[in-house]
Amino acid sequence: MDIPKISKASVLPAYETPHIMQDIEIPELNDGDVLVKVLLAGVCGTDVHQYLGHIPAGGPIEDPPVIQGHEVIGKIVKSMGVTEDVVGNELKEGDRVIWCHQWCGKCYSCRILGQPFMCDNSAGYGFADPKKLRGGYAEYELITAGTDILKVPESVKDEEALGIGCAFRSAVSNYETLLNHGGIKVGENVVVQGVGPIGLYCTVLAAQSPAAKIITIDMSEPRLEFSKKWGATHTISMNEYTTPEARREKILELTGGRGADVVFEASGAPASFVEGVDMLAKMGRYVVIGQASQRTVDFAPGKILEKYCVILGNKGADIRHFYKALNFIDAYREKYPFGDIISHKFPLTEADKALEVSMKGIALKAVIDNRD
Amino acid sequence: MDIPKISKASVLPAYETPHIMQDIEIPELNDGDVLVKVLLAGVCGTDVHQYLGHIPAGGPIEDPPVIQGHEVIGKIVKSMGVTEDVVGNELKEGDRVIWCHQWCGKCYSCRILGQPFMCDNSAGYGFADPKKLRGGYAEYELITAGTDILKVPESVKDEEALGIGCAFRSAVSNYETLLNHGGIKVGENVVVQGVGPIGLYCTVLAAQSPAAKIITIDMSEPRLEFSKKWGATHTISMNEYTTPEARREKILELTGGRGADVVFEASGAPASFVEGVDMLAKMGRYVVIGQASQRTVDFAPGKILEKYCVILGNKGADIRHFYKALNFIDAYREKYPFGDIISHKFPLTEADKALEVSMKGIALKAVIDNRD
Amino acid sequence: MDIPKISKASVLPAYETPHIMQDIEIPELNDGDVLVKVLLAGVCGTDVHQYLGHIPAGGPIEDPPVIQGHEVIGKIVKSMGVTEDVVGNELKEGDRVIWCHQWCGKCYSCRILGQPFMCDNSAGYGFADPKKLRGGYAEYELITAGTDILKVPESVKDEEALGIGCAFRSAVSNYETLLNHGGIKVGENVVVQGVGPIGLYCTVLAAQSPAAKIITIDMSEPRLEFSKKWGATHTISMNEYTTPEARREKILELTGGRGADVVFEASGAPASFVEGVDMLAKMGRYVVIGQASQRTVDFAPGKILEKYCVILGNKGADIRHFYKALNFIDAYREKYPFGDIISHKFPLTEADKALEVSMKGIALKAVIDNRD
Amino acid sequence: MDIPKISKASVLPAYETPHIMQDIEIPELNDGDVLVKVLLAGVCGTDVHQYLGHIPAGGPIEDPPVIQGHEVIGKIVKSMGVTEDVVGNELKEGDRVIWCHQWCGKCYSCRILGQPFMCDNSAGYGFADPKKLRGGYAEYELITAGTDILKVPESVKDEEALGIGCAFRSAVSNYETLLNHGGIKVGENVVVQGVGPIGLYCTVLAAQSPAAKIITIDMSEPRLEFSKKWGATHTISMNEYTTPEARREKILELTGGRGADVVFEASGAPASFVEGVDMLAKMGRYVVIGQASQRTVDFAPGKILEKYCVILGNKGADIRHFYKALNFIDAYREKYPFGDIISHKFPLTEADKALEVSMKGIALKAVIDNRD
Repeated sequence: MDIPKISKASVLPAYETPHIMQDIEIPELNDGDVLVKVLLAGVCGTDVHQYLGHIPAGGPIEDPPVIQGHEVIGKIVKSMGVTEDVVGNELKEGDRVIWCHQWCGKCYSCRILGQPFMCDNSAGYGFADPKKLRGGYAEYELITAGTDILKVPESVKDEEALGIGCAFRSAVSNYETLLNHGGIKVGENVVVQGVGPIGLYCTVLAAQSPAAKIITIDMSEPRLEFSKKWGATHTISMNEYTTPEARREKILELTGGRGADVVFEASGAPASFVEGVDMLAKMGRYVVIGQASQRTVDFAPGKILEKYCVILGNKGADIRHFYKALNFIDAYREKYPFGDIISHKFPLTEADKALEVSMKGIALKAVIDNRD
Repeated sequence: MDIPKISKASVLPAYETPHIMQDIEIPELNDGDVLVKVLLAGVCGTDVHQYLGHIPAGGPIEDPPVIQGHEVIGKIVKSMGVTEDVVGNELKEGDRVIWCHQWCGKCYSCRILGQPFMCDNSAGYGFADPKKLRGGYAEYELITAGTDILKVPESVKDEEALGIGCAFRSAVSNYETLLNHGGIKVGENVVVQGVGPIGLYCTVLAAQSPAAKIITIDMSEPRLEFSKKWGATHTISMNEYTTPEARREKILELTGGRGADVVFEASGAPASFVEGVDMLAKMGRYVVIGQASQRTVDFAPGKILEKYCVILGNKGADIRHFYKALNFIDAYREKYPFGDIISHKFPLTEADKALEVSMKGIALKAVIDNRD
Repeated sequence: MDIPKISKASVLPAYETPHIMQDIEIPELNDGDVLVKVLLAGVCGTDVHQYLGHIPAGGPIEDPPVIQGHEVIGKIVKSMGVTEDVVGNELKEGDRVIWCHQWCGKCYSCRILGQPFMCDNSAGYGFADPKKLRGGYAEYELITAGTDILKVPESVKDEEALGIGCAFRSAVSNYETLLNHGGIKVGENVVVQGVGPIGLYCTVLAAQSPAAKIITIDMSEPRLEFSKKWGATHTISMNEYTTPEARREKILELTGGRGADVVFEASGAPASFVEGVDMLAKMGRYVVIGQASQRTVDFAPGKILEKYCVILGNKGADIRHFYKALNFIDAYREKYPFGDIISHKFPLTEADKALEVSMKGIALKAVIDNRD
Repeated sequence: MDIPKISKASVLPAYETPHIMQDIEIPELNDGDVLVKVLLAGVCGTDVHQYLGHIPAGGPIEDPPVIQGHEVIGKIVKSMGVTEDVVGNELKEGDRVIWCHQWCGKCYSCRILGQPFMCDNSAGYGFADPKKLRGGYAEYELITAGTDILKVPESVKDEEALGIGCAFRSAVSNYETLLNHGGIKVGENVVVQGVGPIGLYCTVLAAQSPAAKIITIDMSEPRLEFSKKWGATHTISMNEYTTPEARREKILELTGGRGADVVFEASGAPASFVEGVDMLAKMGRYVVIGQASQRTVDFAPGKILEKYCVILGNKGADIRHFYKALNFIDAYREKYPFGDIISHKFPLTEADKALEVSMKGIALKAVIDNRD
């Protein structure tokens, strides 16, 4: 296949400013680079925050103009010598791939902690100058040398694989951490606070656990309904149970008066942290995933002792989690309708509309569909 | 309800000797005792070993004559002041219950290790002098004061609850131990060696995990077929794959050449231990449950280092595991046909037949059905 | 030895009221009871809170009049059939013993969670009606049937063993929990916030770990000085480093800019929780022990994700922890001056003075010395 | 400093053949390479196996001729652009460094398991063609681009740091694994089987734990004596206790009849595996480190269940473990005489003698001292 010269891209020119279509010159390919045609690019909650200017620039995060989009599935157009993915699958032109942010592989986080996703020198996708072509809101994207890549098998559809690129790999990363701190035991009860994409993936991981009840909480009825398809056994609508006390009472009612053994926080609201701790049973585990901000809340640390609970959580994931997530999707794609999380599709020229339905909470998940 | 005076019982008079029906005088009930009518008594592999005299007497194990049967569901006839089960459910006459062996609550295992099932002073059911009426092959059974009891909820059928009393609680106990040593991670592959009752319960626990493949191995085609109903995704017949090497090759083929991340040993044959370690992937976990004997096998300890694997396992369980097992059964009873594990039912008078079909491997699980 | 008829006791007649000496009739001894002569009774911070009326009555906590004192070493005067301690040591008159609160052994916490110290039906010592003689501020104390007892070996002095009864067993209980959540790894750095008795015991546990630096923080110079005898390698005086920022800077300076891998919170001030999280390195572990109240503080839950840290903690301990603590004291009594934690001794008649030096922070640890 | 042209090297020309001194042309330095002058090169047990031809060639292991030596401390002569070590310390000429084998950073072990030391494409030091100058029995050694390097601080002596390069990093790597499987709890008893260098480092890690007793077993009296300097509280000589039964009895006597809570196997003899399991207490942990071969032994897997024990172990380590080991050495160098493990020093020209004293068990640790 000939290497194209130009890629169309939907560029965010400045914060809170409509996207504009630009023709970006495809950079010269170096050894180890892989050029892909973008198939689908998901609109993540982070994209909304990025658009609004809520994410401070610095390190791998650049101020606009940027090409947004870090949750992407692409098709290889040209590989500069990369012949295998990280698990040894052969890579060739036309193969569909997903990839994680790029780590330095040399720092304390990479080498001593063994947690590449905490790398201080990472080079993220979706946060870079348009000239680098490192974003998914574009016709083509450049995966630079050293990035960990994973091939998507034939059996998995684009729509099923897309979520691995952000929401699911984060859920898997946190689930793995939870496993190091007790996991989900046989017959326990699980609560998921907030069932946007991350919460939904937490729900399906709880559904594939020995838990007895999986209770989801949200203010959106469609999200709650959808969570049942991914394994929720009970839902609590914040429109019906309007206070933390009412929701806690309901949880106690559903759990024999003991509370939830495991709670996944995927709502993002600081207040939900306090509510989540209050929902925990004795010796419960609290997995905090949604707290992206540094906003504070009134919290009584004495509750940790009283409950004898454990609180944990992380943000980010690396190719380990992509790999595990992909295996899971492949194994359970007939059991859970993974692709149905995509509620809205837009062409590349309508990135603003994709962001809008995401911002307004209309979409479960909006994507930019760049396929022919 | 009047307390009956006499209980019919099927007594094992001596090793390898036919059972005889006897009328046993019901012992005087003391404070804390609970007398139950036996509903179902399962025939466990241990019962066969006991019948054959393979289990050395000592401690809680008495030589015949005994009333066999330690896997039992009963209905309360008379409770001497026991008004609640261990999780606070009200107990009254007519309630169905299950219970574990009786622990001293004072020894090193009970108090320091916190593992009652390793108690050196335990008083087991199914291994006692007929006069004590502490065995399930009888019309009535006496649950003595201090025994932990659990009420079976209305929603769960006798046949579904029965297996908790031995095979399932052992599987749950080992699964909990596995959780302390890595658990089953997202997208991993699991092998179960041997799908008698314990292996089947391991299979269903793996089915309710985020594992990608659940591969069962056995020489019995009906057992392998049944294992699919409880979640096996692949089966390996030892009639087709007749050598450890052939089975290992098949496992490697199914796991991308890497081996099984988790193996449950539920076959009991010492040779399967060596085979199981050989099946493990790097950083695999091996849960050894079936090795009841102290027979030896040729083993290269260097394999542990080579694989960077972990080997663990226990025998026994206490009321914690009964409780978790019961919650699981209640939650998943519509998803997996738990009751169908019972392949043969016999009246109390035909205990020898129940043992025979178990001994010959004809039965998946035989029970003595003492219900009216 | 004849059983005495009367025990002198220092009774707290009402909150914030001077103690009065009373003659208490020794209750009739029942089967399983053990009567001890009190040797030493420690004054715990909890005793001060109890005196001030800060601990709400309910369950095992009774309103005055009570005999205070739950940190006690006693000498057996009469055992009603208790011939062994929980690890099988022979018990006879004249033996020195320590014991924990009494658990029901039947509830969800005792049987399912396996955590007796979370028992809802516990019967504590030091919080009971004087007539029960279940408190250490007395000449004799009654250890009631069913209480777990541990013999103190000849090699350990009264003063060395005393702290096991409260501060040390709590430190050990939390250390065991920490071990389930990562422990202290080779060459890591540990911070202890507050070096009252619990913090000091955390310090010595850190000193017997592979940690590189053990940094203690307090506002009391004598406590900081003393912490060095128990293994602190660095101290931070709150009089010199007067703000959380200054202390955090100092921690960063001592840890190569990375923060503490493990922090033990033993100060009790809610604000120290926020400060402790801020001190943590990436992937750090925070053991919260001192937060006895339910007072709140402004906390940003997003920090948990940012640090990828784990927060845990419990209050209380059972005989397991007494046993481990005692083994530790016995093993390391020549290396660390355990007895020197006792800074003040008072006769039984001067309980008010013992409380006073504790309340004012003059004492490291005050005891009531009831020995002849 | 000028880059030297030629390095003297002690080359192993063929298995079981005396070393010969050769002048090796120093390879052209590429970007990322670091050339060091060798200061000390330890003679590891693996060097003896390598000499005898017991280690099958393949992968990173080359058949002779090779330059042996993988346990090395060197001084930077020339760095081709490497300005920092893995934890961010500045690197410049004259700095002393240690380094691990070189990993590919792209394979399943590196990227998915996160265990570089299990890399299938590693390039080891001490097993390569003399022309590559990748071995420690030489005047200079070439650390090739991509190798993780760690600077040795001024405070640590050459002799103290040397053991990190092989024996200690292996002990630390296994200790970290042990921490994931229970660790060493307060007041427990630890046994170390075999106190060659790896066993000695296990001993000192146990000495810096809350264990009560640290019992070492060996047939060499000088090693047992030395183990006391590194923290052993008790020693068992195999000359006095000549059978596994006698040693087990002694362990039981020292542990109140319960056995060892943690056993480190560092002897290498397959039979010691069976002996080690037999020494374990209920719920014990067995860390198998010394089993380098694939020789078999008669083992009863039923013992795992009977003991409810866990067996684990790995071989190898990466820069994480070097870093932790170095921090530990730096922190405890005044408490334990780390340098004294080096019992014999030889000049580069006497490599055969260094191997000989190692092979005959005369040396605790022999080194080739290449310092001016």
